[in-house]
Amino acid sequence: MRSDPERLEFEIEKRDAAARTGRLRTSHGVIETPAFIPLATRGAVRTLGMDDVAGLGFELILANTFHLYLSPGAERIAELGGLHRFIGWEGALITDSGGFQVFSLAHGNVSDEIKGRRGGSGSGGGVLEISERGVAFRSYIDGRERFMGPEESMAVQAALGSDIALAFDECTPYHAARDYTARSTERTHRWLGRCLDWHAERGPAGQAVFGIVQGGVHEDLRRDSAAFVSATGVDGLAIGGTLGRDKDEMHRVLEMTAPMLPASAPKHLLGIGEPDDLLAGIERGIDLFDCAVPTRLARHGTALAPLPEKRFRFDVARSASATDAGALVEGCPCPTCARHSRAYLHYLARAEELTAGRLLTVHNLTFLERLVAGARSAIRAQGFARYRAEILAGETPWGAEQRATSTEQPA
Amino acid sequence: MRSDPERLEFEIEKRDAAARTGRLRTSHGVIETPAFIPLATRGAVRTLGMDDVAGLGFELILANTFHLYLSPGAERIAELGGLHRFIGWEGALITDSGGFQVFSLAHGNVSDEIKGRRGGSGSGGGVLEISERGVAFRSYIDGRERFMGPEESMAVQAALGSDIALAFDECTPYHAARDYTARSTERTHRWLGRCLDWHAERGPAGQAVFGIVQGGVHEDLRRDSAAFVSATGVDGLAIGGTLGRDKDEMHRVLEMTAPMLPASAPKHLLGIGEPDDLLAGIERGIDLFDCAVPTRLARHGTALAPLPEKRFRFDVARSASATDAGALVEGCPCPTCARHSRAYLHYLARAEELTAGRLLTVHNLTFLERLVAGARSAIRAQGFARYRAEILAGETPWGAEQRATSTEQPA
Repeated sequence: MRSDPERLEFEIEKRDAAARTGRLRTSHGVIETPAFIPLATRGAVRTLGMDDVAGLGFELILANTFHLYLSPGAERIAELGGLHRFIGWEGALITDSGGFQVFSLAHGNVSDEIKGRRGGSGSGGGVLEISERGVAFRSYIDGRERFMGPEESMAVQAALGSDIALAFDECTPYHAARDYTARSTERTHRWLGRCLDWHAERGPAGQAVFGIVQGGVHEDLRRDSAAFVSATGVDGLAIGGTLGRDKDEMHRVLEMTAPMLPASAPKHLLGIGEPDDLLAGIERGIDLFDCAVPTRLARHGTALAPLPEKRFRFDVARSASATDAGALVEGCPCPTCARHSRAYLHYLARAEELTAGRLLTVHNLTFLERLVAGARSAIRAQGFARYRAEILAGETPWGAEQRATSTEQPA
Repeated sequence: MRSDPERLEFEIEKRDAAARTGRLRTSHGVIETPAFIPLATRGAVRTLGMDDVAGLGFELILANTFHLYLSPGAERIAELGGLHRFIGWEGALITDSGGFQVFSLAHGNVSDEIKGRRGGSGSGGGVLEISERGVAFRSYIDGRERFMGPEESMAVQAALGSDIALAFDECTPYHAARDYTARSTERTHRWLGRCLDWHAERGPAGQAVFGIVQGGVHEDLRRDSAAFVSATGVDGLAIGGTLGRDKDEMHRVLEMTAPMLPASAPKHLLGIGEPDDLLAGIERGIDLFDCAVPTRLARHGTALAPLPEKRFRFDVARSASATDAGALVEGCPCPTCARHSRAYLHYLARAEELTAGRLLTVHNLTFLERLVAGARSAIRAQGFARYRAEILAGETPWGAEQRATSTEQPA
C-alpha cells in the first residue's frame, strides 16, 4: 500500500475473527469503520440538508462523478471552491468513478438516479462507443456527445476534490459471458494503471485513490483481480461488479474475494447496503458500504425495520398501517419514530406528500447508522457473531448494541 | 367578544398607530402577534418535519379541513388522538373551514393544493349542488359524493381538535356580480350563526371560533359583514373573500374592512402573506396571516429576498445564479443561507432535486418569520412606519429589526 498519511491513514482498532473496527483518517475528518455511506448522488442526499446528514452521525458521503460531470460540470464546481464547498459538506467525500453509470447507460439502469428530471429519462442518453480509450456517450441532459475514460474520470474527481477517488472501471453485468468478463476485467486493470499514472502526476495532494476489484462471479477472475489491484499500491480496495443473481451468490463472491485483499487496507463493498448484506460484509472484513436502497425505499414509502423475514422492509403505505398508532419501529432513536405514528406516515406516503420521503429517509439512514454502530460495539466486545445472529433473528440494532456494550470486557 | 380564557385569550401589548403587538394564548401555547402562519395543508408543511417548523420559530400552523375530511377522514384522526397528535405538532393549530376549497372546486383552483397526488387532479372532483344547507361535491380522491355545510365543517374541526376553528363561508370570487356577492355574504352570515350554534352545543372546550368577514370589494357589504360578524361574539375575526384584482384594490379592501372590526379582537387576514402584503396588513392592525405562496415558491426554485421591485422574489433557477458563489440572501440567518451558495441552489433547483425545495422552504419561512419578528420589534419601539418604509425600500428584515431594537425607547 502506498498509504500516504497526508491524504489517508487507516488504522485497524480491534478484530473479531475477520471483522474489524478501524479509523479512516481523511483530509476532512476521521471515519469510524465499519461505516455506511449515504449517497449524495447529484450533490445532495435526497430530501435532506447537509446539516441533517451530519446530525444523523455520518462522517462520509458519496457523490457521483458521472452526474456532476454532466451538470453542473467539474470546472464549475472547481471554480466554486470544490465539491465540499459547493455542496456545503464539511465531512469526508468519496466520489465514484462514473464507470458504473457510463456503462449502465447501455442497460438503461441509470434511470433511477436521474429520476425527477424534467422529461423522465431526459434527452435519450446512450453509449456511442466503448473502446480501450474509454466510453463515448450521449448526455441524458442535453443529448451532447461526451467522453469518459480513466484520465477524464480522474481529472473530474481531481477537480471535485473528493477525499477518496475511485478508479475508472467497467462494472460487468451478471449476464455477461465469462469471456467478456475476463477481457473486461483485464481492461479495467489497464485503466487502473492509467488512473494511477494520471493521479501520481496531477492528482490533488489530499486525495486518495481506491482501486476496484472486478471479475464477476468467477473465482479465478476475482482472485487475479484482487492480486492485480492489491499490487498496484492503491490507498484502498473496492469490490465492484456483479455480485451474483441472489444473496447466496453475492455472499459467495464476497467469500472468494474479501480474503484475497491485503488485511491492512480499507475495503469498500460498492453499492451494497441492505441490513443482512452489511452484516455479511462486516463479517468478512469489509469496512465501507454505500447503497441507494435505503434512501430510495424511503421515497417509496418503505421503512427499514427489524424484519429479517421481510428483507428488513416495512411498507408503511400498505393499508394495515392506516389505523396503527404505534411508532414506525418501536424504540428507534430517530426523530421520525420519536414523533410520528405508522398511521401518519401511511397517510403522508399515500398522499405523496414530500414530507413522507424526508421522514422515512431520516429513519432508514438512522437504522443503518445504528446497525453499523452496533456492529462496531460488538466487534470491540468480541461479540460480532452474536450481534449478527441477533439482528438476523429480528433484534433491533439499538437493543443488540446495548446488550453488546453491557457485556463488553476490559480490553 | 365571548372571549373565553379557557380556550383563547388575546392581549394587546403595544400599539403604534393602528399596528399592534399582542399575545394570543391558546390551548397549545402562546403566539406572539403579528404572526405568519405556515400552511400544513394536508397535515405536513411540505418538505419539512414538524421539528423543523418548531425550530424555525413558528408557534401556530394552519391545516385544511377539506383535505383532511376527504383523507384520512376526521373520525380516523379523532381515533388517533386528534390532529395535534396525529401530525406530531405540539404548538397551536388553526383549521380553515373547508369553505374556500369546496367552493373553489367549481373554479378548479384547489388543484395546486392537491398537486403531487397520483393522477394530477385525481378522480375529477367537482361541485354537484350549492344550497342553503351547504355544498354537495365529488371527492377528488375517490369520486364519491360528499357533503359539507356549516355543521359538517364544525363537526370535522371539532374532531380534529384544532385550537382555532374557522366558520364555514363562501369565498366569493373577484368576478362575481355585486348582487351575487351580497346574497352570498348574507348566506355566509346565516352559516356563521349555524356554526356558532353547533359549536356552543358540541364544540370542544379548548377550541375557539373565528368568524369570516366577506363582502367582496364592496365597501357597504364589507361594512355590513364586519358589523354582523363582530356582533356574534366570535373569538376572533378573519377577513376572507376576494381582496380585489391587484394589490392596490387589496389594500383598499383592507382599508375599508379592518377599521370596522373590534379593536380588541384578534384579526386574521386569510390567504395573504407576501412581504408587502404582510406589512400592509400589520399597518392596519392585522394580527395573523397565512399564505401558500412562500412554500409554493420554494418548491419552484424561488426565494424571498429584499427585492421590493421584484415582488420580493429571487428566482434562483435563472441562469444568472449558475456561477454565483454568494449567499442566497446576504446576512440571512437561515441555515440555507449560512451553508449554501446561489450556484448550489440554482443547480439543485434546475436538477429538480428534492433537497432544493427543502432548502428554499427553510429560507422563505425564515424570511417571513424575521419579517414579522422585525415588525413586532418596530411596533414596540414605535417605529413601525420606518420599518415598513425600510423593507419597502429593500432593507432586510434582520437589518431593519436590529436598528429598530437599538433605537427602542424605554416603555
